[in-house]
Amino acid sequence: MAAGRIALNIGMFGCGTVGGGVFELLHSAKKVAQLDTLGVKAVVSKICVQNLAKKRDLDGFSEKTTTFTSSYDDILNDSSINCIIELMGGVEDAKDVVFKAIKSGKHVITANKALVANFMPEIAKLLEENPQVRFGYEASVCGGIPIIHTLQNAYSGDRITEIAGIMNGTTNYMLSKMEHEGVAYDAVLKEAQDLGFAEANPSADVDGFDVQSKIAILAKLGLNSIVKPSEIPTVGISRISTADFEYAKMMDSTIKLLGVAKLLKETDPEKGTPQEIAVYVSPVVVPHSNVIASIGGATNLVNIRSSNLDSSAYVGQGAGRFPTANSVVNDVIQLARGESPFDPFKSTQPAVLQPNYEAHFFVRITISDGVGIIRAIGQLAEQSNVSIYSILQAPITDRKRVQFVVTTDQTTVSRVQEMCDNISKLSFVQEAPLFIPIL
Amino acid sequence: MAAGRIALNIGMFGCGTVGGGVFELLHSAKKVAQLDTLGVKAVVSKICVQNLAKKRDLDGFSEKTTTFTSSYDDILNDSSINCIIELMGGVEDAKDVVFKAIKSGKHVITANKALVANFMPEIAKLLEENPQVRFGYEASVCGGIPIIHTLQNAYSGDRITEIAGIMNGTTNYMLSKMEHEGVAYDAVLKEAQDLGFAEANPSADVDGFDVQSKIAILAKLGLNSIVKPSEIPTVGISRISTADFEYAKMMDSTIKLLGVAKLLKETDPEKGTPQEIAVYVSPVVVPHSNVIASIGGATNLVNIRSSNLDSSAYVGQGAGRFPTANSVVNDVIQLARGESPFDPFKSTQPAVLQPNYEAHFFVRITISDGVGIIRAIGQLAEQSNVSIYSILQAPITDRKRVQFVVTTDQTTVSRVQEMCDNISKLSFVQEAPLFIPIL
Repeated sequence: MAAGRIALNIGMFGCGTVGGGVFELLHSAKKVAQLDTLGVKAVVSKICVQNLAKKRDLDGFSEKTTTFTSSYDDILNDSSINCIIELMGGVEDAKDVVFKAIKSGKHVITANKALVANFMPEIAKLLEENPQVRFGYEASVCGGIPIIHTLQNAYSGDRITEIAGIMNGTTNYMLSKMEHEGVAYDAVLKEAQDLGFAEANPSADVDGFDVQSKIAILAKLGLNSIVKPSEIPTVGISRISTADFEYAKMMDSTIKLLGVAKLLKETDPEKGTPQEIAVYVSPVVVPHSNVIASIGGATNLVNIRSSNLDSSAYVGQGAGRFPTANSVVNDVIQLARGESPFDPFKSTQPAVLQPNYEAHFFVRITISDGVGIIRAIGQLAEQSNVSIYSILQAPITDRKRVQFVVTTDQTTVSRVQEMCDNISKLSFVQEAPLFIPIL
Repeated sequence: MAAGRIALNIGMFGCGTVGGGVFELLHSAKKVAQLDTLGVKAVVSKICVQNLAKKRDLDGFSEKTTTFTSSYDDILNDSSINCIIELMGGVEDAKDVVFKAIKSGKHVITANKALVANFMPEIAKLLEENPQVRFGYEASVCGGIPIIHTLQNAYSGDRITEIAGIMNGTTNYMLSKMEHEGVAYDAVLKEAQDLGFAEANPSADVDGFDVQSKIAILAKLGLNSIVKPSEIPTVGISRISTADFEYAKMMDSTIKLLGVAKLLKETDPEKGTPQEIAVYVSPVVVPHSNVIASIGGATNLVNIRSSNLDSSAYVGQGAGRFPTANSVVNDVIQLARGESPFDPFKSTQPAVLQPNYEAHFFVRITISDGVGIIRAIGQLAEQSNVSIYSILQAPITDRKRVQFVVTTDQTTVSRVQEMCDNISKLSFVQEAPLFIPIL
């Protein structure tokens, strides 16, 4: 075996959609031949599952090489296992398993975005204490897009200033349907649920929590800043209506749910001030001229702005059995070939998270028609120091429920929020205005 | 210094646009601090240039650390130099320098696509004989897109079936102008030359030779097949007219100059037959629904189809000082951190290059108007066994020079070529038909 290479004896936690895919990619005869030519030796010798009785049809399975267990310790205490693949999901048990594995010197590969996003500092510390352990998490963000490895490697000599991405296939599918077929939110959600795209409880997707974990991870790798997912301002898509797409279309734009991480101010070594960043999850108005607008359906995209490369984008499947399994297996291959990075999270810089980020905003206001409305809203905008850039009004069909859109000049979230709070109090206003940033 | 890391003492060949950028990224104070945090030690101690007298303004330059020379041997025979960066361009001298460097145990980083594309087998053999030497060539294809590292790593457990990309910014800029502003080919070429985008002799760009080298390199990494650039069927953009864009638009499509590498048939171990591939460079009709169509201006894109990931795309700047320098520096960082791949070209499989690839074709025919034309062309199509899918005719403005487009069902290049040769002989046909594939 060549220098640096490791023969991997793997314990896998979880054997669902992705786990089955990983097993097949590592064990089916054809794939094993392919790995052999790469000098990769990797065998999944134990699989930990909740239900031992369940029949599993795994391509390449042999009882001689692989056994099932329902006990975590059966893998964690097995000194012949030098690598675990964690595909359990959830945070509590997964954290226990991963932390114990690192402490016992086992390499870890995980697809668990919530675990990584919430415990990067703790994991980094454990890795420092166990420097021989490698940690791979390519599968935790945007399934089939190799965004983790790319951020670990392709920007090392560069300075990233912005990461913005479509990182949730379910909501992008829903928004695309709403845009192109004019289907209302509730109907498109039901359809996504019927197709198995969205969960019975769709909150993680539609409320943006899935993207929250992912952008926290990318912010760490791209901007070197630890951001607690729970501190990221997060707005989901549940208030987006087909009317919003009509107004976006007037602006030659569409609406996408994005995770965004932006460098606002560099560290100032003289003043000793840390870098300032903004990280948020929100539906965003995206001009059609931006490649992000062209990504429909369940596809994901991550767009990165940096000082050397200007703008680069990475596009691919965001989820699914083989895209995600492929990312897990890439970590396996990298590890087996001794090519894993020494510091998977890269260095950390102190940073201030600025929740009150600046943008142009799209504000949709719903009223019963009347006179003096524009004047009243203009007054409230002025009062909150918000400069109005344009007012868009589609032909009115129902005078009792009129929607129109105000776009603002560059301003802060807090000013727009204040303006909208005041607008909500106007007698002719029917609901709190919806406001989302414009890219 | 951590295990596996190498302190690099670099000799650089060439110091033009990219070389200056590389020097700055490795030597300007701010960048050095950034590299320090990565544990990267890399100094360019000698630079070989043709003209020693030329004044060079390099950020971070100090005579104490860096000297200029005009002698190759001054670097090649310097045993303290353990890495060369080759940015000379051209093939003959660059080949001498790179081969000698490898033989004397120096690591090599190059941006030279023609060198890599034409001498991969020879370089691979030299690397086998000098296993301690690492070879980086990220900058040789699509400047700022990390496509080489991505193909080296992200698809190791996957099977790539197609690579198709916009890999030349100059021609993509020209085609975008022709499409959106209706500017004729000659005028847009002159404009690109005036702007310094296109060379005085634009052949490498407009005749597709630049893309030829790049797709040869990607075909090796993606399909494991060595393809001689000179054997790749290559058609440039010089015959594309604004009329072609009008017809493409009728098909809800546009026209892009693509490099394409496709797996046609897998290796059959039982029959002992090698894999069959098609590699070509040609203007291609691309539907607007494909992300490739959305890439305008000088931006590059590489789209990869694979069995695990379905379709993924990588978008970014294809050329320019800092995008290209960034790729060179990424190779430097990877090398300094001991994370370079052991086999930069990956394994090689025997392959048959099938020049007679299949596609739907777009055939533009120019005639003086008359009767019986469609019948005559239909007859010639039938004679060559080409099935016609549609006939598109814009309103006729000049009856002496009428252009129309025939699209075909799936057929082979040779059949379409034969049909077009026969069509050329018809009395009312004014010039050889233009035929290009449809994606």
